[in-house]
Amino acid sequence: MENTEIIYGKNPVDALLESNKRRINKIFIAKGIKYDEKIKRILSRAKEYKISIHEIPREKLDNLTKGVHQGIAASVAPIEFADFNELLKSLKNRTNALLIILDKVEDPHNFGSIIRTAASAGADGIIIAKRHSSPVTSTVEKASAGTIELTPIVQASNIANAIEKLKENNFWVIGAESSGEKYYFEQDYDMNCAIILGGEDQGISPLVAKNCDILVKIPMSNNVNSLNVSNAASILIYEIVRQRILKNKT
Amino acid sequence: MENTEIIYGKNPVDALLESNKRRINKIFIAKGIKYDEKIKRILSRAKEYKISIHEIPREKLDNLTKGVHQGIAASVAPIEFADFNELLKSLKNRTNALLIILDKVEDPHNFGSIIRTAASAGADGIIIAKRHSSPVTSTVEKASAGTIELTPIVQASNIANAIEKLKENNFWVIGAESSGEKYYFEQDYDMNCAIILGGEDQGISPLVAKNCDILVKIPMSNNVNSLNVSNAASILIYEIVRQRILKNKT
Repeated sequence: MENTEIIYGKNPVDALLESNKRRINKIFIAKGIKYDEKIKRILSRAKEYKISIHEIPREKLDNLTKGVHQGIAASVAPIEFADFNELLKSLKNRTNALLIILDKVEDPHNFGSIIRTAASAGADGIIIAKRHSSPVTSTVEKASAGTIELTPIVQASNIANAIEKLKENNFWVIGAESSGEKYYFEQDYDMNCAIILGGEDQGISPLVAKNCDILVKIPMSNNVNSLNVSNAASILIYEIVRQRILKNKT
Repeated sequence: MENTEIIYGKNPVDALLESNKRRINKIFIAKGIKYDEKIKRILSRAKEYKISIHEIPREKLDNLTKGVHQGIAASVAPIEFADFNELLKSLKNRTNALLIILDKVEDPHNFGSIIRTAASAGADGIIIAKRHSSPVTSTVEKASAGTIELTPIVQASNIANAIEKLKENNFWVIGAESSGEKYYFEQDYDMNCAIILGGEDQGISPLVAKNCDILVKIPMSNNVNSLNVSNAASILIYEIVRQRILKNKT
């Protein structure tokens, strides 16, 4: 099973087949499972795409997935990272592109749900550091709820260098930081934006913060220091979505 | 260990002692752990409050916590739920109160991070259903990052009844639903608001949706159906925070 990943759960496997972007090696289905609409759709699509279907004991599926699999799983080729230069090239003529940079987000649930929010917001890409980042595990894929193929993900060897490159390519680099000079909603995002979010423990690293064009903060009551990083990401990303929808309307 | 809960990890235990609102029975510390600043502060506060400190083998702590405990844990009395009528009474003269209603949010990470966002937003209370809700486990407390005592939590036996009562008490009940008639940011929240979010699988139940005064939706691209519920909650809650901060400024 080297170089394969296990995607499990009805919705993730269904979404995987629907997007039809990744090479699926096998579908595993638990013996004795009830064939509901979703399972039927999965199996009929699997047949259509000539993917082999393996009926296996539920216990074996438990071992394979280490999570709530609902009787269904798929073995797939690992996701392919996008090339940073290619991504920048594809955004060359854009004036309102949106990239999300994750600086050491290590929790796979957070990473997965940020991928989901980014896809839902129509973001153009996600940039993660090669080190100190959650790898793209099946937990990440499950938390992304089948959205992982929708947004290119770039692995950068160095976030500081990536920031420099973004600046040269007409991007504004905006960090989320409690020391930010203004609230996130006081910023106008009518430009190419790269939003940076820091990891669960430390936030954005000082060097990265220093390289940001703008630092914005989220208002917090009750002496709360910080939010869950996926929640902070959602708040910022959807402020950008909000502003852009309202501008297009006028 | 009946009727006690285990809180673990440096930040949660530290926050627990700092807030000093719950009865802590014992502190457990792993043998051989490095005494850094946080551990030292925890131990000095524990001594100050005369809480007994038990040094135990790391393996025993592993068993006790079932999570990343960083060598420290506390055994505490379970959180006390707030009384709904008392909460309503305390909000009687308010014109901009904010309550969060969770309709069958079953994932403890989501529940915990919604508690954290609610505290950070200065929300006045969280209402959960007695059934089909995540119980307040140590996973919830950990995900709340020490914010669980900051916002009253009410357990309602019936969400539909709670909605009726809120309406009688001058609250507008606003559901987050993909069938909503307008975007969440097109709504003016200058009033007492109770925001309802549905569970991970099904969203708001039809009966609950029918009883809402207003249904709002979050714009989504790429055919994404829904967001992680804690992310959706954060987006809505912080839109309310945003509007209220801007109104107070003018």
